[in-house]
Amino acid sequence: MTKTVPKNAKKVFEGVLFDTYQWEQEMYDGSKAIFEKLVRKPSVEVIAIVDNKIIVLKQKQPCRENGFYGLPAGRVDDGEKMQQAAKRELLEETGYQSESMNSLVEFFGNSKIYFHEQVFIAQNCKKITEQKLDGGEKIEIEFWNFDKWLQLCRDATSVMPFGFRMMMYEALLDKKKKEELKNKIFGM
Amino acid sequence: MTKTVPKNAKKVFEGVLFDTYQWEQEMYDGSKAIFEKLVRKPSVEVIAIVDNKIIVLKQKQPCRENGFYGLPAGRVDDGEKMQQAAKRELLEETGYQSESMNSLVEFFGNSKIYFHEQVFIAQNCKKITEQKLDGGEKIEIEFWNFDKWLQLCRDATSVMPFGFRMMMYEALLDKKKKEELKNKIFGM
Repeated sequence: MTKTVPKNAKKVFEGVLFDTYQWEQEMYDGSKAIFEKLVRKPSVEVIAIVDNKIIVLKQKQPCRENGFYGLPAGRVDDGEKMQQAAKRELLEETGYQSESMNSLVEFFGNSKIYFHEQVFIAQNCKKITEQKLDGGEKIEIEFWNFDKWLQLCRDATSVMPFGFRMMMYEALLDKKKKEELKNKIFGM
Repeated sequence: MTKTVPKNAKKVFEGVLFDTYQWEQEMYDGSKAIFEKLVRKPSVEVIAIVDNKIIVLKQKQPCRENGFYGLPAGRVDDGEKMQQAAKRELLEETGYQSESMNSLVEFFGNSKIYFHEQVFIAQNCKKITEQKLDGGEKIEIEFWNFDKWLQLCRDATSVMPFGFRMMMYEALLDKKKKEELKNKIFGM
């Protein structure tokens, strides 16, 4: 697990989505410099399966009027567990629910931004209610087969964790990795 | 070109590398929320050619002691042009220089972080001096052929613009795109 920020780092700004930390760092030559790293609020993504298809959302948000594709996803609320957030976001954005919500992979950002993202798999989803969108969301639900879904990583306007896009590209380049990913997603 | 921040956004924090902007955004249902976007200082990357090989740097930095691969690259100084920064970073990090420094592609971050990154090609580079590293850099210079270099995108610890990693993956997936990229880089 990539560490958040060094122990001696101080929070110098608390934002809505990003907090800024700074610390004095000793360099290789003995000089010192102010280093900076952001901590972004954690997010979850859900690969939701309905009858062998994967739910893909076509979204619009204020300031993002061109629309973009992505998975059911969202920010984790304060005090909420990652898995709880995954269940909540899936239900709110799609009206679907699953008895299972299993972690597939998680990521921790890069050297400049700590960002905990976790991707879950929800198999055998059932529609139990209507979408419950907040005022900043317009979402259409689509159902894609695995091969079409795997191509989503190639759409630069789509939104997904950086490390997960790499996993999808790797599956496109390597048949064995593709089968492994498919088997994990569909629980075979 | 992706826009930076909305006109009504205010800079609420000025950091070393990231500035934080916030604004009041009207939502689809008429409610309002505070939106946030960061502006990161611009960076340049250089694809530097020496005798049909591409310069790849193996770097260590304080807080990144495991080391990572990447291209000659760095932050643009205040008031400096992108192309100037590319020439300066190439010379400082490698001691090499080229008469040409041509833009290949540029990127502008995502909806949460505005980040102007530009990738340049420097053909026919010549060594004219020694490396001139700052106190926070340890850099070894390697020379990779095109096919090995193209695999660099698959190394999750390597550092490069997100959009450029996608371009490299696309070249691995599509022979025509691979030839086009190779021809642009080597000036054929």
